[in-house]
Amino acid sequence: MTVKIGLIGLGMIGRDHLKRFQHVISGAQVTAVCDINHTTADAVANEFGATAFYDAEEMINSELVDAVFICSIGPVHKAQILAAFNAGKPVFCEKPLTPTADESKEIIDAEVKAGKRLLQLGFMRRFDPGYQALKQSIEGGALGDIMLIHCAHRNPSVPESYTLEMAVNDSATHEIDIIRYLLNENITSVRVDKPRKKTRRALPHLQDPLIVIFETESGVRIDDELFVNCHYGYDIRCEVIGENAIAALTEQQFISTRSLNGNAQHIAQSCMERFATAYDREVQHFVDSVRDGREMSGPSSWDGYVVALVCDAGLASLKDGEKHDVVIPEQPALYR
Amino acid sequence: MTVKIGLIGLGMIGRDHLKRFQHVISGAQVTAVCDINHTTADAVANEFGATAFYDAEEMINSELVDAVFICSIGPVHKAQILAAFNAGKPVFCEKPLTPTADESKEIIDAEVKAGKRLLQLGFMRRFDPGYQALKQSIEGGALGDIMLIHCAHRNPSVPESYTLEMAVNDSATHEIDIIRYLLNENITSVRVDKPRKKTRRALPHLQDPLIVIFETESGVRIDDELFVNCHYGYDIRCEVIGENAIAALTEQQFISTRSLNGNAQHIAQSCMERFATAYDREVQHFVDSVRDGREMSGPSSWDGYVVALVCDAGLASLKDGEKHDVVIPEQPALYR
Amino acid sequence: MTVKIGLIGLGMIGRDHLKRFQHVISGAQVTAVCDINHTTADAVANEFGATAFYDAEEMINSELVDAVFICSIGPVHKAQILAAFNAGKPVFCEKPLTPTADESKEIIDAEVKAGKRLLQLGFMRRFDPGYQALKQSIEGGALGDIMLIHCAHRNPSVPESYTLEMAVNDSATHEIDIIRYLLNENITSVRVDKPRKKTRRALPHLQDPLIVIFETESGVRIDDELFVNCHYGYDIRCEVIGENAIAALTEQQFISTRSLNGNAQHIAQSCMERFATAYDREVQHFVDSVRDGREMSGPSSWDGYVVALVCDAGLASLKDGEKHDVVIPEQPALYR
Amino acid sequence: MTVKIGLIGLGMIGRDHLKRFQHVISGAQVTAVCDINHTTADAVANEFGATAFYDAEEMINSELVDAVFICSIGPVHKAQILAAFNAGKPVFCEKPLTPTADESKEIIDAEVKAGKRLLQLGFMRRFDPGYQALKQSIEGGALGDIMLIHCAHRNPSVPESYTLEMAVNDSATHEIDIIRYLLNENITSVRVDKPRKKTRRALPHLQDPLIVIFETESGVRIDDELFVNCHYGYDIRCEVIGENAIAALTEQQFISTRSLNGNAQHIAQSCMERFATAYDREVQHFVDSVRDGREMSGPSSWDGYVVALVCDAGLASLKDGEKHDVVIPEQPALYR
Repeated sequence: MTVKIGLIGLGMIGRDHLKRFQHVISGAQVTAVCDINHTTADAVANEFGATAFYDAEEMINSELVDAVFICSIGPVHKAQILAAFNAGKPVFCEKPLTPTADESKEIIDAEVKAGKRLLQLGFMRRFDPGYQALKQSIEGGALGDIMLIHCAHRNPSVPESYTLEMAVNDSATHEIDIIRYLLNENITSVRVDKPRKKTRRALPHLQDPLIVIFETESGVRIDDELFVNCHYGYDIRCEVIGENAIAALTEQQFISTRSLNGNAQHIAQSCMERFATAYDREVQHFVDSVRDGREMSGPSSWDGYVVALVCDAGLASLKDGEKHDVVIPEQPALYR
Repeated sequence: MTVKIGLIGLGMIGRDHLKRFQHVISGAQVTAVCDINHTTADAVANEFGATAFYDAEEMINSELVDAVFICSIGPVHKAQILAAFNAGKPVFCEKPLTPTADESKEIIDAEVKAGKRLLQLGFMRRFDPGYQALKQSIEGGALGDIMLIHCAHRNPSVPESYTLEMAVNDSATHEIDIIRYLLNENITSVRVDKPRKKTRRALPHLQDPLIVIFETESGVRIDDELFVNCHYGYDIRCEVIGENAIAALTEQQFISTRSLNGNAQHIAQSCMERFATAYDREVQHFVDSVRDGREMSGPSSWDGYVVALVCDAGLASLKDGEKHDVVIPEQPALYR
Repeated sequence: MTVKIGLIGLGMIGRDHLKRFQHVISGAQVTAVCDINHTTADAVANEFGATAFYDAEEMINSELVDAVFICSIGPVHKAQILAAFNAGKPVFCEKPLTPTADESKEIIDAEVKAGKRLLQLGFMRRFDPGYQALKQSIEGGALGDIMLIHCAHRNPSVPESYTLEMAVNDSATHEIDIIRYLLNENITSVRVDKPRKKTRRALPHLQDPLIVIFETESGVRIDDELFVNCHYGYDIRCEVIGENAIAALTEQQFISTRSLNGNAQHIAQSCMERFATAYDREVQHFVDSVRDGREMSGPSSWDGYVVALVCDAGLASLKDGEKHDVVIPEQPALYR
Repeated sequence: MTVKIGLIGLGMIGRDHLKRFQHVISGAQVTAVCDINHTTADAVANEFGATAFYDAEEMINSELVDAVFICSIGPVHKAQILAAFNAGKPVFCEKPLTPTADESKEIIDAEVKAGKRLLQLGFMRRFDPGYQALKQSIEGGALGDIMLIHCAHRNPSVPESYTLEMAVNDSATHEIDIIRYLLNENITSVRVDKPRKKTRRALPHLQDPLIVIFETESGVRIDDELFVNCHYGYDIRCEVIGENAIAALTEQQFISTRSLNGNAQHIAQSCMERFATAYDREVQHFVDSVRDGREMSGPSSWDGYVVALVCDAGLASLKDGEKHDVVIPEQPALYR
């Protein structure tokens, strides 16, 4: 069986996934694409041999579609997800699940009511071989009890549309999820430190770099350097400090080159490049789950909801510089 | 469409591929397995939900099978491949194509007569991200004209059944193929250097380590250290020296660990571990070609034939220590 | 001319320097050693062919001594330094200059009155090739304006005598000095973060690890992980984040080894091992200055005083967890 | 005591050593310089506060000179060394000891007759921390019995005056010495392989790159890539393959930089840069030996003689491409 995918939202990430379906993913075909911009929808549909839709609900309910792939902007996620749930169609949703925790809660409620997981959330880092090796190393016990984690999240630059809040909601959100994944526990507090020095490469409305400090239930302290105009590359670092040993992500490159530039390994220039394998694997995971009729697995609506709660605390700290606690409701059995 | 795979030969590599089909590969199912050992065939068929066959031709011609996956021992490859060709079914064949160049020539002739490629050969290294990055680096021009390549092919140990000749036919064979892949040209001579010193870890019938020296049409000199009882790991190295710069495979590990053992990166312990991604990708490539009705691509019968010719020269040099030339017939248009 | 050295304090670091004078340093000889423990003084004097003293002032004023090398405990530093100043003899003093900033101020006053630098302080890291390369990289402009520095200061373990305060006064003190060295500016505030999680390897009276956060005049933010029971090694890390690029200390090892432990580089197990070259070079620098009749240079009394002021703020923060500002008096012309 | 050095030969290496004496070395002063070019001798003498000589013997016998430092061209080494021996003054001699093995033999004879070592030869690599760590690793037993060594000797470019023979006599000579140092045994055969492909960066009279293959008494096989127009840097590699493990020189850099060029470590651009520490340490070793009245130690005349014998075999192989054996006379007791 080939899974018929209906993809909503034809922006950068949507188009990237389209190419992925065309060249990498097995067992699926994008049969329908949807965008509120008719010209875009028509052009893309034409290019990829799919049917164009301009209304998401219409596409979701179409017989052309087995599974819904949401790449639209955050504010419309909730309606699209609930429509897919109603249509009984499995959903892949790009992060964030929704812009607010409250909206995410509605999705949780619907899924719990349905009694099974219907959605895989796009926290692709969980499919990255590096993070998976780190998790294996932690769980294998070689590091001992974990004390600290040092993260860095660096982008070469960000577009003008990038707001101060996006440092938390768009950038730190990945570390928030991955910390929970690595440690199997929740974050209990957030504090955003604003260094007095700002890079001149950032637009004036930004505070760049920032340092975000998290604490978890068991007391692990994590610092996350967010530097979204670091100029030189898309560079993701993670070092996990345990009682006995330390493990860290390596350069993740397959060759090194000796030249007039020294002995060098390339550094990825974009999220798409750095996490190409992770993206491929998360989408294949989704397709395989659908094809085999399995319940959705991987990052869940609950993960999206909890990350949203942590982000809310982060945004509050971004305003007042204080440490903010995160209160997380009891986790429904469905997500355990 | 799900491709129905008939897999012949249930030894170590055959079982490894079975698990791969079960857990990793999309779009295919192993519906039939074949082994001359009835007990083995029955047990494996039972475990993987496939039908057991004891005769390869019978399985090849069965309606249960869309495509033939050959993991049997070399001496029976030719008959099985030709049977599959006759049945019009695409073939994946583990290397070596055949034990002798002459037999490989018969396969070439059959394929040329058929007028299209019917077989993908199991030179998995061409699907390794490291070698692919090396090739990209060479073809991108950053290295300039290539002068030299230094290779090492190290196994922690080999079984008692490993013969002196297998250093060429089983081990060096991978470098022979990958050199042709990297440089897009043929090897013209081989010389095997036998160092006076042998590791005491090798069984007395072996000469370990060995150094094999190749030259290509354009004059590139390649040395290949074969050390199949190196004790510490399965370690594959490749350094390409160009007029302007040098590129080399890195450690290929995603994390490093700081502990009482120093700052360390794991070294793979087996071929299966080191080339896991390459194996996954070569098999997915085969399945995708079959599913999409495309002509076979990737490593070809011709590659298998030419490698066999180089190996023949290598075996001659292993005996007399002299440099032996390799004469390669004109390449049929089919393989260009 | 061979400089006659009088060395005070025959503890661990004192004996280490004695061996250094014997085997590495050119142009100097330890002619006198002093320790309040008569047995120790006699034994060491005998072993190294020096004259034993039990009273520091007596040794300082002896004709056997051209230059004074202070390795005694902090509380007696001030008296010994001032005695050397009075005797007109150049002083090398192990850090800390004095236990309190007030005492350091007295030394500054004496030196300023003398109108020239009379003392080199034992901040050996300034002589480490790694930190020197970092400084060169910063000053060469390749990194652009500096935004952040991430440091780690890890010891395998500490003796029972190590107190909570020593995390600031003994460990962080090195980063405090080196930050000033790298950035050519002062630290203006300190905050000590106490993670809720403590390693079980630390004695109960310690809080280990700790994170200390500094800010400098221009607004650079530095975080320093102090982990003095990290188990695996003496591991000093420093990563300098600039507007354009990042530079970091490497592993500082000259060979790597491929074995069953993977591909590994040794990690130093002690301060003496990690900074062997730096120690050698700082002492040679001192001896050369004395021999050539040059004014003292390298880390100064002023550096010791300012570091003490920063430590005071750090100790205050260690108590209350708040950020404490550092007020630094105007720098006398002598030290510019 | 300050050792008064008389330095002969004011070319590139001579001037480099002069700066070393001025800025780095303790316990010595260059009191006399000698060059057949009067203008050069006068200018340098003036710059460094030394006395100018135009005749080597005159300088050697002058009371201004305690020890002789020979940086002149090879053909005049023998006469200068013997003159120094006659004057009873210790000699440091830049390699090669002499252009031919026969001349070296005369020096051996004179030294043996004198009954003690009078000369330290400038094989500075023995003072390199990297090679010393390799040797320690070999002798510590972690690698097990040594099987193979892979070396590379790469220069960014060579001057027009560089001849084909210098690949052996000037470049490989360093590996010849260091192999003997690492393995504590002699080389018994040499074969020079001339790859068909030559870099277009080399002048037409050169064959570049070359591969030289050595065997030692115990049967260790060493290959040495000589690539003296490699363009990108002065790059020295050494990988020692043992029965149990492998050790190799690392990048030898103290910092790495993340920038638009990737994550890079600088590669040295010259011998002077790469072996700066080694040069410093060999010269300090010589000065310390003289100052302390010790017999000369480190690389000896015998080492120079044996290396010359190996070079002779290498030159023969460079001509005919055959393997040439090296016959080494019995080693006089003096050098054991």
